[in-house]
Amino acid sequence: MILIKIGGGQTINKESILKDLVEIKGKKLLVHGGNYELNELSKQLHYPPKMITSKTGQKSRFTDEKTMDMFMMTYAGKINKRIVERLQQLNTQAVGLSCLDGGIVKGTRRQSIRCVENGKDVVLHGDYTGSIDEVNTELLTLLLNNGYLPVITSPILSFDGEALNVDHDKLAMQIAIALHVETLVYLFEAPGLLKDFQDESSLLKECKLSEIDTVLEYAEGRMKKKVLSAKWALEQGIQTIIFADGRVDHPVTKALQGVGTVFTQG
Amino acid sequence: MILIKIGGGQTINKESILKDLVEIKGKKLLVHGGNYELNELSKQLHYPPKMITSKTGQKSRFTDEKTMDMFMMTYAGKINKRIVERLQQLNTQAVGLSCLDGGIVKGTRRQSIRCVENGKDVVLHGDYTGSIDEVNTELLTLLLNNGYLPVITSPILSFDGEALNVDHDKLAMQIAIALHVETLVYLFEAPGLLKDFQDESSLLKECKLSEIDTVLEYAEGRMKKKVLSAKWALEQGIQTIIFADGRVDHPVTKALQGVGTVFTQG
Repeated sequence: MILIKIGGGQTINKESILKDLVEIKGKKLLVHGGNYELNELSKQLHYPPKMITSKTGQKSRFTDEKTMDMFMMTYAGKINKRIVERLQQLNTQAVGLSCLDGGIVKGTRRQSIRCVENGKDVVLHGDYTGSIDEVNTELLTLLLNNGYLPVITSPILSFDGEALNVDHDKLAMQIAIALHVETLVYLFEAPGLLKDFQDESSLLKECKLSEIDTVLEYAEGRMKKKVLSAKWALEQGIQTIIFADGRVDHPVTKALQGVGTVFTQG
Repeated sequence: MILIKIGGGQTINKESILKDLVEIKGKKLLVHGGNYELNELSKQLHYPPKMITSKTGQKSRFTDEKTMDMFMMTYAGKINKRIVERLQQLNTQAVGLSCLDGGIVKGTRRQSIRCVENGKDVVLHGDYTGSIDEVNTELLTLLLNNGYLPVITSPILSFDGEALNVDHDKLAMQIAIALHVETLVYLFEAPGLLKDFQDESSLLKECKLSEIDTVLEYAEGRMKKKVLSAKWALEQGIQTIIFADGRVDHPVTKALQGVGTVFTQG
């Protein structure tokens, strides 16, 4: 079984990814983001994204109720259904789902967030984000066993029944672990993990689990979170994780040929 | 099995409908609209709804590509996922689906529409609407047999793989027929079929299939389409169809007690 996670960046070659995907034999899942589209909608609705910085320096989107509405509109609405439409055109029985549906993924809402605004410590309330604590595989297994291709996105469900925005790299990784996926592919707007993030030719081609702590020093910001996700996934038994370029022609085929950064056990 | 169809009007008491729904034993489905929300989003995005009038006088929404994006955002995104969220809060395993997902409903796109604009006959292209020709029950049956409550909305899939906006009354009716639902409940912003549409006390309480052609004269506009849907559904074997008020407390419970217009065989 294979899980492909595609980022929500503007330059991701979604069309080529979907065409590649339908050619893969066996069970497969797609997890997608929608960052760029959400930012666009937010601007058009005169409700621009509010990015916050935690005390540890992590940046994230402040997701109040109105932002969650827009989140559902873009991620679970337009993007998810346009992907399903295209996969159906390609004769593939796709089923688009948020992680609310069938309670696929559950987590814990952060009741308040400590962050830094203009150099000052502040506590924010009303944020619908949280941790990923539980993956319920029943619905996904039912669909996979009956030949469907699940197309999955946020939000997830809090244990109190609230929709939550979560980190999509972690989401893909947790679903992959729960389903015992063999291969997990992350497609984003870079060739893979770069030794120098400003130099696309400095690609790290291979990395074993035992080497991850060393290569972590190359990664900054969101890439650091991705590498930590990969480490955790390998530790939990996933055999192969590939970070690859989602902007090129045939991103999935190339990734599976090993073009990108290939993380393996050992 | 029971199918509840709720309209997309602003005054529909969705909260009470969902609370009623979770109390119903046995297999059940929900089909929902989203007209009001779509109009609101259209206005906010400075792309107001374009209503067209066919040569036979039927009014409908002109659904170009951008409108379909907004349609997916509201119907399949925000509204569908907020309903699923609320049902999950009420400990019900809801799964939200558009009719693209799993190719649930297929139809034929209208390549062009003849309509009347300012008294003139015009032909419009680029409209993503069409007929409902086929319901594929596999996915819905799989979910229902495994204890899930499907929450269904448009768009449907054209035979060429395009997302289409269709009449939701017909959609609910066609799904009900395909699944051999016993009871079909339409909840909208009126007490049922009124003999005088301006007088809410003029409710027609009962109507047999053989009487429908006679009572059709009471119905105008969208209500006429609903009554014709009901006639077709009875002819196709649905035992009971109830038109009832979605604005009151406990709309589903009251409808099932017979408060509204109850259409039956005979």
